[in-house]
Amino acid sequence: MINKLVQKIQETHAPIVVGLDPMLSYVPSHIQKRAFEEYGETLEGAAEAIWQYNKEIVDHVYDLIPAVKPQIAMYEQFGIPGLIAFKKTVDYCREKDLVVIGDIKRGDIGSTSAAYATGHLGKVQIGNHAYAGFDEDFVTVNPYLGTDGVKPFVDVCRQEKKGLFILVKTSNPSSGEFQDRLIDGRPLYELVGEKVAGWGADCMGDSYSYIGAVVGATYPEQGKVLRKIMPKSFILVPGYGAQGGKGADLVHFFNEDGLGAIVNSSRGIIAAYKQEQYAKYGEEHFAEASRAAVEAMIADIDGALQNAK
Amino acid sequence: MINKLVQKIQETHAPIVVGLDPMLSYVPSHIQKRAFEEYGETLEGAAEAIWQYNKEIVDHVYDLIPAVKPQIAMYEQFGIPGLIAFKKTVDYCREKDLVVIGDIKRGDIGSTSAAYATGHLGKVQIGNHAYAGFDEDFVTVNPYLGTDGVKPFVDVCRQEKKGLFILVKTSNPSSGEFQDRLIDGRPLYELVGEKVAGWGADCMGDSYSYIGAVVGATYPEQGKVLRKIMPKSFILVPGYGAQGGKGADLVHFFNEDGLGAIVNSSRGIIAAYKQEQYAKYGEEHFAEASRAAVEAMIADIDGALQNAK
Repeated sequence: MINKLVQKIQETHAPIVVGLDPMLSYVPSHIQKRAFEEYGETLEGAAEAIWQYNKEIVDHVYDLIPAVKPQIAMYEQFGIPGLIAFKKTVDYCREKDLVVIGDIKRGDIGSTSAAYATGHLGKVQIGNHAYAGFDEDFVTVNPYLGTDGVKPFVDVCRQEKKGLFILVKTSNPSSGEFQDRLIDGRPLYELVGEKVAGWGADCMGDSYSYIGAVVGATYPEQGKVLRKIMPKSFILVPGYGAQGGKGADLVHFFNEDGLGAIVNSSRGIIAAYKQEQYAKYGEEHFAEASRAAVEAMIADIDGALQNAK
Repeated sequence: MINKLVQKIQETHAPIVVGLDPMLSYVPSHIQKRAFEEYGETLEGAAEAIWQYNKEIVDHVYDLIPAVKPQIAMYEQFGIPGLIAFKKTVDYCREKDLVVIGDIKRGDIGSTSAAYATGHLGKVQIGNHAYAGFDEDFVTVNPYLGTDGVKPFVDVCRQEKKGLFILVKTSNPSSGEFQDRLIDGRPLYELVGEKVAGWGADCMGDSYSYIGAVVGATYPEQGKVLRKIMPKSFILVPGYGAQGGKGADLVHFFNEDGLGAIVNSSRGIIAAYKQEQYAKYGEEHFAEASRAAVEAMIADIDGALQNAK
């Protein structure tokens, strides 16, 4: 799957991923109205609204981008109906040949991590049959529990030719509270980065490992260091746009081959129609605003990468 | 909810929690057969089997214990039908007046953590209505992202009078890889423990905070230190029984008031019938074996606490 991701990035010239993190407040009123008329102001109604919203955005941007990253929390808040909308979104994006990164940030120990890995990347055996629960292509994983929390995910990836992005240095303001603390003179995130490189060494695709890392766009200096510590790991970079990261901040997350990073934007794309610069599209044409925002983001990052050459 | 947990522990004299972490291989064949006859060898069939299995165990032990801890990964591996079984289990245990600790180990940043908190502990607003997605009483949270990952959970707890157990020192063999690394001469888990005490200080129930911690039974020495660092935090202690922890290892997780800790056993209780000492019950009477195992666990821990006096 890492080979497919690389190939799609090369085809689209777009090392970006659209974060499908729908808040109900982002969903235009005409979509909410239609969903609530059919299902009432219920969990089912909200789930239908976010699914229709996602679908229209995906229909308008899928040809421009290699990948999407649905954030499961945004669906989980609507209980079972929300998770059904998550699954529909994953399935629909895969039909559109997009690489799907499930932003699930799971992590546990032994058989419990194995169960998460099975549910999101693998297949569960029931009698003589095997079923995929959610069937994403990549998932994000939290490393706090150490190797025996991560290894069951790696094992399933090897079996299924799928991949991981492991949290190393997150984009939020207080990420330094634990991640930046010095251990033998070096921050914890560097040690985690070294582990990621180690876990990934046995999991190579053609040019990159299928065990990647998450490093926030808001920490470009740290990104530069981590790029060197994990030369064969793809870095998933959240924090572009709404969280403050800009194209020029991102060049050091990439390798000299112009690859090695994939930059996420969520709100900046899916709720673009709420920004002044895309207001002309109006609520009705929200998905066209998203397409314009994707084009602008590609130009911003491509421009920064060209300038850096 | 922490007050209810304390009260129920005092009533039952059982500072224990039963981990409802069903593997399909634990479910007796007569239950599997019935479920598969009705739903086929499908995700729905597997979910029905684990739900019926859970229900029979809960019916046999609910009067002896204060709380249960369903591990969501074990349900998530069966996709949507599995999560429906998780929700049924949560609802049923609450009907039985058990405190429900959702072992979900979620953790993200800002609005994403808020969405998880809303989905598992709070209510999501949809138009003029508010709905609970899963409605556990406590959840487990991963602290790797720092304060702004944890605070949205704390906020919902304050609103809903619910609680958290935050991962501090986990029970698995490789938990030390990051958690034990020294920072200014002290292990990372101590710093996390201090943060837990700080987050919990503003969230006091009558005698304990509703912000607790997870510390593995397999690390009794670390438990002793953490007990002192977080005097007002309840400690959820996994790793008893199947993972190797024993009653005598656990006394230092408790305060002098005999409170402050709640010890989890999962496989040792729910799959007791597979152990030699409970084999006499047979597969048909698996839930009676679970009841006997709960009684033995209460005696073991109570004995250890009495000896320590």
